[in-house]
Amino acid sequence: MRIVEASQFTMKREIDYGTPEQNERVREILNTVRTEGDKALRKYALEFDGVQTDELRVTAAEIEAAYSQVDAKFLEALRAAAANIRAYHEKQKRNSWMDLQANGSLLGQVIRPLRRVGLYVPGGTAAYPSSVLMNAIPAKVAGVQEIVMVTPPATAGDAGINPHILVAAAEAGITEVYRVGGAQAIAALAYGTETIVPVNKIAGPGNIYVALAKREVYGVVDIDMIAGPTDVVIIADNTADPEYIAADLLAQAEHDTLSPVTLITPSRELAAAVQAELAEQLAVLPRRDIAAVSTAERGTIVLTGTIEEAVRIANEVAPEHMEVLTAEPFAILPAIENAGSIFLGPYSPEPVGDYFAGPNHVLPTNGTARFSSPLNVDDFVKKSSVIHYSKEALLASGEMIMTLARTEKLEGHARSIEVRLKKERSGK
Amino acid sequence: MRIVEASQFTMKREIDYGTPEQNERVREILNTVRTEGDKALRKYALEFDGVQTDELRVTAAEIEAAYSQVDAKFLEALRAAAANIRAYHEKQKRNSWMDLQANGSLLGQVIRPLRRVGLYVPGGTAAYPSSVLMNAIPAKVAGVQEIVMVTPPATAGDAGINPHILVAAAEAGITEVYRVGGAQAIAALAYGTETIVPVNKIAGPGNIYVALAKREVYGVVDIDMIAGPTDVVIIADNTADPEYIAADLLAQAEHDTLSPVTLITPSRELAAAVQAELAEQLAVLPRRDIAAVSTAERGTIVLTGTIEEAVRIANEVAPEHMEVLTAEPFAILPAIENAGSIFLGPYSPEPVGDYFAGPNHVLPTNGTARFSSPLNVDDFVKKSSVIHYSKEALLASGEMIMTLARTEKLEGHARSIEVRLKKERSGK
Repeated sequence: MRIVEASQFTMKREIDYGTPEQNERVREILNTVRTEGDKALRKYALEFDGVQTDELRVTAAEIEAAYSQVDAKFLEALRAAAANIRAYHEKQKRNSWMDLQANGSLLGQVIRPLRRVGLYVPGGTAAYPSSVLMNAIPAKVAGVQEIVMVTPPATAGDAGINPHILVAAAEAGITEVYRVGGAQAIAALAYGTETIVPVNKIAGPGNIYVALAKREVYGVVDIDMIAGPTDVVIIADNTADPEYIAADLLAQAEHDTLSPVTLITPSRELAAAVQAELAEQLAVLPRRDIAAVSTAERGTIVLTGTIEEAVRIANEVAPEHMEVLTAEPFAILPAIENAGSIFLGPYSPEPVGDYFAGPNHVLPTNGTARFSSPLNVDDFVKKSSVIHYSKEALLASGEMIMTLARTEKLEGHARSIEVRLKKERSGK
Repeated sequence: MRIVEASQFTMKREIDYGTPEQNERVREILNTVRTEGDKALRKYALEFDGVQTDELRVTAAEIEAAYSQVDAKFLEALRAAAANIRAYHEKQKRNSWMDLQANGSLLGQVIRPLRRVGLYVPGGTAAYPSSVLMNAIPAKVAGVQEIVMVTPPATAGDAGINPHILVAAAEAGITEVYRVGGAQAIAALAYGTETIVPVNKIAGPGNIYVALAKREVYGVVDIDMIAGPTDVVIIADNTADPEYIAADLLAQAEHDTLSPVTLITPSRELAAAVQAELAEQLAVLPRRDIAAVSTAERGTIVLTGTIEEAVRIANEVAPEHMEVLTAEPFAILPAIENAGSIFLGPYSPEPVGDYFAGPNHVLPTNGTARFSSPLNVDDFVKKSSVIHYSKEALLASGEMIMTLARTEKLEGHARSIEVRLKKERSGK
């Protein structure tokens, strides 16, 4: 990792909008699925995954069988995690409300779950059962009645789905699963096919084709977000353990060669110690080929004058994950303005949140924590306003409403009030 | 308006993604502003509006002077509306929370306002002071510290801003206003210029160039939504007053020749009476040129067998505005699944909500009420998760976290837990 003084540090942000060719290809896939439906899904499965998918839907027997392919310790841990995730997200639920007013009118806000949600789960090495829980449980807690999962076969040439993914889906209460991946899966969720009923919203991560497809169908359906590479910022002082910090930086760096990992500290000693630890731990890490690139090319230790300055810089970075390893982490919390998830103290390394504690691991990347939030129950509900004016209320405010409408030269608006005032005042 | 039986009715949805030329032009404008800053803003103001804008920022004196150009009745009505809007949105505010657990750990959700928000306000005839209130007040209630408004000059060749807009901005607490419009204004808000500090989110309606520019900068900043033409569905039975219904349909139809206006009713008599009333009222409506097109081309009366069927169809349309003019409107409310704003009963015509009652008039159009909500306080806040695990909690769950990480072949994640468990268990 490079070491820079605070004054020299700037965070590079990049959004991958894909090449013109990738965009063109995605639009072509979307159009083909839109017009040819299931036939197109089968064609692409053969073309991209070398898989014959006569049965697009994964059967109940296949899901049942998956349970025998995962070990008991995994299932126990998965269930404990699911319970924690459920408990945390239950606290995000909100009620519809209404406000009764003295003049007999009533204003309200109705909160309802989305009817049907699609969840994309990548195949291959990026098939994470934890992501299934993190995406499905908030939707379930929100009250979404239909959650459908799409995921490509686990290995090329074989139509089978990763059993850990199927078990996670079943534990989260998903029973509708299709073996479809890529941009074509997004098209199926957005437009529907003979087999797949279209959804209202698509959530879940994917490769660049999936991301571009989601961007393209946004508006036809809602989407969760377009995620960039995962990132972490660790704020630490000289009370922090360099061994922990190095391990936590590597836990992030092993995801992706593009993952930015940043330590911000006023302690030169700590910086040096972390560098040494990092080299040692990296050498024996299974995914060292990835982590070596991300730490070398996207790894930074920023040296600051004070902890306050460290927090200020961290807020500018607006990280997806922020660990605070200082003498008094809670003293710093009020100053943290931009971060997806905040991990306080030495016993809260980021994997606690990735897998287990309960808060969501789908978080705003690429500095978008300045304006975005972790995936949450609100993402799977929608609100409607309710307005009921009494005759008294309309008579009292009608003239003012007409004044505003006429200022905007919308006479039709004014007349929709006026026709009522006239009739009521004339007593007819 | 055409009359169709329920079985024949389908709602056409269109999203205007612009022509390739419009998209190209917008990208060019965005790039130019990004590289040339204020100079580009001045160049485009001259090119598009014929206006010399040496002073981009509207002065306090100009805002003060605007008050003398609006009449007292307007100001009184505007202030009453602002108070109602403020009161309604105050009820949407939510607190940060934390959950203390028996094992000494703490989970929480911090809710913070966005730091800086940009509000686009169109010029010309679409300059609506009510929209200024509807966009600015939720941001203000959310606690956004910096709200900046951009708006083009009111008339070509004159740098002055519509005084009603300036007064509405001042009443909503906006003091930072720039005379910039179009795609170039969106670029300035997203990327910043010498004069304009970039924002975290852009809200507010605009023409196709503004909409395309918002779509393009989404990700760099957040955006509110891409609005389509405004629409209404009225559900009515034979207790409803055809005069009211005709007036309410026209209040919607006068906005835009593309505005879909729909009456859904089981009553043939009502349908005929509304047709007659509509002809009469349309003939004397100032904006009859617009409303005649939208009612003729986008106007539909759908005849159903029952009120229940009417509600079912209305849910499929998922209108921006839904009026319920039936004997018992509240009996229908629980069955309404998709609608931006619901207006119940004869004294709650849509302009009550457009201007005055308090709920937002920025609503999901084009059927997006299936998954989107009225503009609200949540749109101007963001959440961060907080995780603090105690030593006890980590010791208790560490093995399970490692199991999950290793199932996903993320050994670095497992080791960030393991390094702690080892050290704690060895007592070092």
